[in-house]
Amino acid sequence: MDIQQLVRDLKTTNDSKIVMLVADGLGGLPVEPGGPTELEAARTPNLDALAKRGVQGSMNPIAPGITPGSGPGHLGLFGYEPVKYLIGRGALEATGVGFELGPNDVAIRCNFCSLDAEGNITDRRAGRIPTEQSAPLAIKLRDVSIPGVELFVEPVKEHRFVVVFRGEGLGDKVPDTDPQRTGVPPLEPVGNDPASQRTAEVAAQFLAGAGKILAGEPMANGLTMRGFSAKPDVPTYEQVYGLKAAAIAVYPMYKGLAQLVGMEIVGTPGSLSEEIDVLADAMDDYDFFFVHFKYTDSRGEDGDFDAKVKMIEEFDSIVPRVAALNPKVLIVTADHSTPARLASHSWHPVPTLLVSDTCRPDACEAFSETESLRGGLGQFAAVYLMPLALAHAERIGKFGA
Amino acid sequence: MDIQQLVRDLKTTNDSKIVMLVADGLGGLPVEPGGPTELEAARTPNLDALAKRGVQGSMNPIAPGITPGSGPGHLGLFGYEPVKYLIGRGALEATGVGFELGPNDVAIRCNFCSLDAEGNITDRRAGRIPTEQSAPLAIKLRDVSIPGVELFVEPVKEHRFVVVFRGEGLGDKVPDTDPQRTGVPPLEPVGNDPASQRTAEVAAQFLAGAGKILAGEPMANGLTMRGFSAKPDVPTYEQVYGLKAAAIAVYPMYKGLAQLVGMEIVGTPGSLSEEIDVLADAMDDYDFFFVHFKYTDSRGEDGDFDAKVKMIEEFDSIVPRVAALNPKVLIVTADHSTPARLASHSWHPVPTLLVSDTCRPDACEAFSETESLRGGLGQFAAVYLMPLALAHAERIGKFGA
Repeated sequence: MDIQQLVRDLKTTNDSKIVMLVADGLGGLPVEPGGPTELEAARTPNLDALAKRGVQGSMNPIAPGITPGSGPGHLGLFGYEPVKYLIGRGALEATGVGFELGPNDVAIRCNFCSLDAEGNITDRRAGRIPTEQSAPLAIKLRDVSIPGVELFVEPVKEHRFVVVFRGEGLGDKVPDTDPQRTGVPPLEPVGNDPASQRTAEVAAQFLAGAGKILAGEPMANGLTMRGFSAKPDVPTYEQVYGLKAAAIAVYPMYKGLAQLVGMEIVGTPGSLSEEIDVLADAMDDYDFFFVHFKYTDSRGEDGDFDAKVKMIEEFDSIVPRVAALNPKVLIVTADHSTPARLASHSWHPVPTLLVSDTCRPDACEAFSETESLRGGLGQFAAVYLMPLALAHAERIGKFGA
Repeated sequence: MDIQQLVRDLKTTNDSKIVMLVADGLGGLPVEPGGPTELEAARTPNLDALAKRGVQGSMNPIAPGITPGSGPGHLGLFGYEPVKYLIGRGALEATGVGFELGPNDVAIRCNFCSLDAEGNITDRRAGRIPTEQSAPLAIKLRDVSIPGVELFVEPVKEHRFVVVFRGEGLGDKVPDTDPQRTGVPPLEPVGNDPASQRTAEVAAQFLAGAGKILAGEPMANGLTMRGFSAKPDVPTYEQVYGLKAAAIAVYPMYKGLAQLVGMEIVGTPGSLSEEIDVLADAMDDYDFFFVHFKYTDSRGEDGDFDAKVKMIEEFDSIVPRVAALNPKVLIVTADHSTPARLASHSWHPVPTLLVSDTCRPDACEAFSETESLRGGLGQFAAVYLMPLALAHAERIGKFGA
């Protein structure tokens, strides 16, 4: 069953508000057997109060055992089957630096590399050139001109940057030019269909121009191109759910992911507290609000259990301000787990909470991984979260008579 | 995975009996936060005793967040993917008045309407003409004759009635003739493919004949046609499960839904107690018994919590008589929730109980929404209920060696 299509067919509209708070990487693991997870160690009186009112569950972002990246993790939360709606690597990288992709764009992740006199790669990452040196170099590459194509170059970090070609009829079926080893030259770009052959020609022109600009550089005198990808063809929140949706986030990646599904970026908050200011101001203007909190994930990635606990407590502290806005449906969830013990994203399910006056309460007394196992939402796939949110917002009509 | 196809391939036969008791709209909601649902408020010693013996779960009729109508709700219970097997509006309306659709039938929901001298609609529901006046009028329309086509007209209620055309090669791709507004005439019937063009011609002939009969009527001097639909192409219980199935119900709608999947209607009970009499008498003659109890849903639709509680207690009171018949598998479930607080069908999962001597017991001490969350069936989709029933009836062979 294509649940998103079913919801799309049954959607209705009203003036209810849905707020989805995403504490990135929220789910965790105990450090010691029998110990608490980060969420269980944190003092979260406000989330626990919500848990008593709402319905809880244990959510699989993709499927049991599958660890999502940020892209698929968010697409799943947004109700898009992540295996169906793939975001290419180039598109994700462009999104991550805040570049808004258009329908005629092909985005590419590029690496500066070091070439010897014969043009063979001696270092695939240009000696991990520091960002202070690589960023101005990437910006210089904007001087390359390619007839009939608009060129965008955006620095990322160290040896990494993003290139976007904008032009009619550019395909993205171009394999990576990185040969994945040293002692050989970068591969020539080739296109696997006519539209992508055009892109390969454009890439060759870019490489020729860039080669001249980089010729005298001591480390970063070459480049490789990877993950050629167009903007994924994703229906918007308006089309699928009939929702005018706002995204409130600090980091470009999450703004970009929200833009891919047609959300509008609202405000320029620099902190979680400022995000809630933006939410309060925007409440009348949108139906749905995605509010992203990054640092639960960051501290998990750092492997710092105690710091992640603190971030969860900071997250808890803003809950009363959100609840006071009185949305019809309030969701607290995450795009994936990031247990500090693993210092990385993981496949573990995500404790998820939905609060609405149409909830059938469950026996959960707190918001936690363990409590979520006996919650009324059971163990469920992320793509069902939006249908549940819409149901509680009374935005889905009856299926059949 | 197509679970129904898998079961179909693996089915075996024996002389075991399966009884499925459906308390329509059973699932509920608390009125006050922290309060009980209707089922939790009701005194149900017999259901609770079954819950201790059997295995319980929280069942999603269609998918999380989706509120089913009676048609899809029952198809799901019967093990048919409701999104795959759609029942057209006309077919459902015909089914609802006890009309047994055949393979050459097209059923249409009709509304009497009021027309002015120019033939424009002045009232789309003919002033909500009372049934006492509309029913004889609908029956008069049986006098219309259409060459080569058998015509059936069945009164429903107030301005509503059902028309069925029976004839070879009639399609059902005919859009509604109701223009959904007043001040304009009804739309002409048009067919979207050759077979449906034939149906549109038949409909035009019917409309011409009906127009003459209704000409002098003060209110109901016109009609509109909606939901043209053929009998859905559904494999039978015998074909899919190898079960000779009986349906025991008071209301025509549920008899009709059971007939769509090839069940035989047994008896003409007028009450739940009489339904159990019929069940007891028929026990030797069938393998599977669908027993439908309507009033849990009716009182839920009324928004009357206390009255629904009473209906659940009435339902509980017949459980010992059913258990005494000693079926190999006894199921207690519902086609959907109808919380009195919402006074309508809802998306909330349905507490479901399966009792058999091959159950692995769970820790549930009572039959309720909250208890079902820790039951052995977990949270599951309705289409898995029949496979589970067949398994406990030892009617499914091993898959693979």
